[in-house]
Amino acid sequence: MAGSESVANGVSNGDLLAASADNFGGVTVHLEEQLDPQVFHAKLRASVSAWRQQGKRGVWLKLPIELVNLLENAVKEGFYYHHAESTYIMLVYWIPDTPSTIPANASHRVGVGGIVLNDKREILVVQESTGDFRGTGAWKIPTGAVDEGEDIFTAAKREVKEETGIDTEFKEILAFRQSHKVFFGKSDLFFICMLRPVSFDIQKQESEIEAAQWMPIEEFAAQPFARKHGLFKYIAELGLAKADKDYAGFSPIPMSMVFKNQISHLYANVKDLQHSSSSTDRL
Amino acid sequence: MAGSESVANGVSNGDLLAASADNFGGVTVHLEEQLDPQVFHAKLRASVSAWRQQGKRGVWLKLPIELVNLLENAVKEGFYYHHAESTYIMLVYWIPDTPSTIPANASHRVGVGGIVLNDKREILVVQESTGDFRGTGAWKIPTGAVDEGEDIFTAAKREVKEETGIDTEFKEILAFRQSHKVFFGKSDLFFICMLRPVSFDIQKQESEIEAAQWMPIEEFAAQPFARKHGLFKYIAELGLAKADKDYAGFSPIPMSMVFKNQISHLYANVKDLQHSSSSTDRL
Repeated sequence: MAGSESVANGVSNGDLLAASADNFGGVTVHLEEQLDPQVFHAKLRASVSAWRQQGKRGVWLKLPIELVNLLENAVKEGFYYHHAESTYIMLVYWIPDTPSTIPANASHRVGVGGIVLNDKREILVVQESTGDFRGTGAWKIPTGAVDEGEDIFTAAKREVKEETGIDTEFKEILAFRQSHKVFFGKSDLFFICMLRPVSFDIQKQESEIEAAQWMPIEEFAAQPFARKHGLFKYIAELGLAKADKDYAGFSPIPMSMVFKNQISHLYANVKDLQHSSSSTDRL
Repeated sequence: MAGSESVANGVSNGDLLAASADNFGGVTVHLEEQLDPQVFHAKLRASVSAWRQQGKRGVWLKLPIELVNLLENAVKEGFYYHHAESTYIMLVYWIPDTPSTIPANASHRVGVGGIVLNDKREILVVQESTGDFRGTGAWKIPTGAVDEGEDIFTAAKREVKEETGIDTEFKEILAFRQSHKVFFGKSDLFFICMLRPVSFDIQKQESEIEAAQWMPIEEFAAQPFARKHGLFKYIAELGLAKADKDYAGFSPIPMSMVFKNQISHLYANVKDLQHSSSSTDRL
């Protein structure tokens, strides 16, 4: 902690911002309390000078939105934006003369689509009342964004339930699409999930869904819109390959993480992994 | 464009900020020119009032970092942060009384790891000189972040090349892991890729790689660190399942996008999809 170090370079501890060290040779300042902008400016300048002497590399400065009045002086000192969430902005400053190795901001939005097929080979589809599909007449599978901190299998069940009222069981990820420059320049990963319905009466969402229905999958695939659009075609193809044939997608396997006391999920072709387990028994 | 509308509500066009409409009933203001903060404040207030009368919903305000001096007044008017990149911050304001449907910021970082096996069943491994693995003695596969706008298969080849100097050919995604709260609260997707080496002389990266070598895969899996750590175990298992058995991962299929003149990639179990193509010929 910079705050715990002795007077150096004519600057007393009281003139420095408290900071914690990270594993990459950097420091993080997390301001919580209001400061006079001029006082903040002087402390920030003295702190950067002290960190430079200590050989520190990246400086992270987290400012809650309530401290927006301090931002201008941080930018004047050479800090730039790293990322922001509704309640705060994170700024960074790279001290060494070498190129910055500060990691990039979150790079991808993640979405899910749910293929829900009933025993009559009907697929659960919706028409959207906002967005790009509005007014196209296209029937599409329920889709939506995976929230920060949400598992893909949870998001798929949640979106199907929200848009159509149908309860489902998660089966597999059949495929996913990566595309670019989709949302403010960010890339996008869209996971196509297979779900088994466990309820059947549709209750469509009022706000963003125009209509919802069970539709024969052949009819879904034959829509003029779908015939032109690769993704629709693959969705029908993947759904049928899973329903009728032996298509193997990726299923979640819970797994503990190494540096944190937390469960993550590995998605893999579990069927093939089991077939091949003889080759790994000796490991 | 708000700027092209006639005088309404006692506010002349010159008092409003120019804005463009979006497909979701919202408007976007993209300020480029310096404005006096007081003048900006008055215009922003008058503009929000005009948009409210027009029934607009979300307001997006993009401020380049050079206009940091305007931020405080935007926050005073009730705008909050949506996201930021090094050169700008995006603020939002939700006009209606109904709950906001403003889409979330990018939610995931995306990483890749490359399993590179040579004909002697040796796996290409590195020791890192920074980060969590520093000083653990663990030999791991080359890993790194997928950049915004970068394809997963490109990122996998690039990271292996950067860290070890080895040229490769991309084969398949064998599995991926989703984990949470990994980086400033963001979630993380880590894709485990199989690559075939086409060069064999290691030239390790100086800045972040301590050592690199070809290691018998059994030795890799037997590391004390790896035996405790689920992901290492699965990496060895998946690599062997792919090398020795018929494990099918996901391969990229280029695909045109519907609303943009752009190529994206679908990653799917191509082997099983081909087996099942008879079922979809009639579509």
